[in-house]
Amino acid sequence: MREGVEWAAHCCINLSWVAPEKAVTAARLAAFYELPTAYLNKQLNALGRAGIVSSQSGPRGGFRLGRGPDQISLMDVAAAIDGSAQAFLCTGIRHRGPAGELAVPEEHRTRCTVARAFSLADLAWRRQLAARTVADLAAEVRRANPAASDYVRHWFDRN
Amino acid sequence: MREGVEWAAHCCINLSWVAPEKAVTAARLAAFYELPTAYLNKQLNALGRAGIVSSQSGPRGGFRLGRGPDQISLMDVAAAIDGSAQAFLCTGIRHRGPAGELAVPEEHRTRCTVARAFSLADLAWRRQLAARTVADLAAEVRRANPAASDYVRHWFDRN
Repeated sequence: MREGVEWAAHCCINLSWVAPEKAVTAARLAAFYELPTAYLNKQLNALGRAGIVSSQSGPRGGFRLGRGPDQISLMDVAAAIDGSAQAFLCTGIRHRGPAGELAVPEEHRTRCTVARAFSLADLAWRRQLAARTVADLAAEVRRANPAASDYVRHWFDRN
Repeated sequence: MREGVEWAAHCCINLSWVAPEKAVTAARLAAFYELPTAYLNKQLNALGRAGIVSSQSGPRGGFRLGRGPDQISLMDVAAAIDGSAQAFLCTGIRHRGPAGELAVPEEHRTRCTVARAFSLADLAWRRQLAARTVADLAAEVRRANPAASDYVRHWFDRN
């Protein structure tokens, strides 16, 4: 998984704390974590294509959340940055060579047992991530550190 | 995830069907799916290091399952081939730059919220795979195609 997933998730949490009308530049979002701006900008554009952030050009331009933080799941963020392919790679070897000559009755043709088992695991992974929103994560950060949201808001206000 | 995971899982199912005393060469296991022998041999050696298969050298040498197929989970196979690192890459950006200057009271120091959410998803993925054994998969293949186990056993007997 690309490191951009971590970056994007933290940026979404931060954007949930700045005033909704305020657009934050990629440079400023990057500076908060000392990240390379150009590379973070790519991630932010990927979030934009997924509707997770909206971008605005011009002197007061930048990024803001594209919908409420309770409407953005960690799965949305991961898929926007990393794609939605599953981890397991099935190349269909069971159809090759002598294995492929094993006649399977038409009515019993199924998806590969191994691929299906990995798909179920992948589904469990996605369900967990789909159930956690940016709003949940932001609330959890605040429980651990109640000062976090004000600190972030003020830091981005000094822009 | 490496394509070797697919290869290894199918080879384990096949080995569960050949007579327990019979060792099967990497070349023969590879030929069943027209796989490159040298590369499959690497995967089989990785399975060997994890105790999933045992290998025997000599003219009647080869691989056999290292323990019962009901004692080998798909998680064991995936970890042997692909390692046990989780998908999410946490580089600890929250400790860097202005973000890192946000003082967190000692008693509230927690693992990163984002990393923890991905860990829980990873755990759900592992649990699913740990609950599926080679014996389960072999039984499922036979339900779809009752001839599969005999076909495999006979094919590997003609060695």
